[in-house]
Amino acid sequence: MKPENRKQEIINAAAVLFKEKGYSAVTMRDLASAMGIKAASLYNHIQSKQEILSNIIISLAEEFSTGINSINNSETNAIQKLEKIIELHIDVTLRNADGLASLNNDWMHLEENNLLYYEKMRREYEDIFRAIVKKGIRAGDIKTYDVEIIVFSTLSTLRTLYLWYPKQKKINPELLKHDMISVLLKGLV
Amino acid sequence: MKPENRKQEIINAAAVLFKEKGYSAVTMRDLASAMGIKAASLYNHIQSKQEILSNIIISLAEEFSTGINSINNSETNAIQKLEKIIELHIDVTLRNADGLASLNNDWMHLEENNLLYYEKMRREYEDIFRAIVKKGIRAGDIKTYDVEIIVFSTLSTLRTLYLWYPKQKKINPELLKHDMISVLLKGLV
Repeated sequence: MKPENRKQEIINAAAVLFKEKGYSAVTMRDLASAMGIKAASLYNHIQSKQEILSNIIISLAEEFSTGINSINNSETNAIQKLEKIIELHIDVTLRNADGLASLNNDWMHLEENNLLYYEKMRREYEDIFRAIVKKGIRAGDIKTYDVEIIVFSTLSTLRTLYLWYPKQKKINPELLKHDMISVLLKGLV
Repeated sequence: MKPENRKQEIINAAAVLFKEKGYSAVTMRDLASAMGIKAASLYNHIQSKQEILSNIIISLAEEFSTGINSINNSETNAIQKLEKIIELHIDVTLRNADGLASLNNDWMHLEENNLLYYEKMRREYEDIFRAIVKKGIRAGDIKTYDVEIIVFSTLSTLRTLYLWYPKQKKINPELLKHDMISVLLKGLV
């Protein structure tokens, strides 16, 4: 196995352990034991638990950051942008629900520059989301409700998808995208 | 102060500490110190940390349980029922956001019968919510989207209200009820 693949395998196994026990409770020894290898050989690939955590969270945050910037720069209206944002969250959830658990539960355990960088990306993400909603209201594409209530109602659902979707057996990704876009943007009535 | 008021004061102070540090990390000594009283005098009112936790969570769960049963038994259609459910969540959040933090973060620390009782109420709550949505779809009041996607999209927002709303300074309860009902039920478009 290539070293890069081995490193990714370690990161994936760590994300599962972090999800189950929380970052603070997991040791490098636990991780080695879960993978059936010696703790010493982990250190050929990874320097520390912190390196693993920042790898998981920063790469996810960058994915959201790149995604929302590209959506925001496209020549589409606010509703089309929100549809793409919902798809972005669903795609990331399908690919890496374990990593999203670390991001949601353990981001506060990031150290120093990684923590600042993560918080900056998170703030910018929300600012772009908010700006899209505001523009949509001004353009008449979105009804004139309170912007913060709209942003919270939408993001609270998208951010907890990783907890709920892995337990659903009967909902395929296409149905999820179609119905979630409809429910969140067009409502139930 | 009446003993019952003193007991409630202890429970409220504990809910704040549980929210800040998590149930497991809080000791009866921490609680006494936060209230400026001696640990021994806590025990005149409360037998254990577990008694406090179950008091917080079970009373909230019973409030939701009673609320949704009364809403479900009223002679209204599904959309009117969902409006009342949204108002129920907002009312409970306004009154006891700290308690909701314990319910969401620390329910798994309930012991034995309290845990079973809480889980039963939670299951029944979701079942009634699901049944209201299903009836609404059959009656043509709610569009025919996947029931689980509707339930998740709505409940994920209502269940995280306690985290978001206390930080909002510009949204009064009436605006919150009106706009949240509109956003969740009628959508943005």
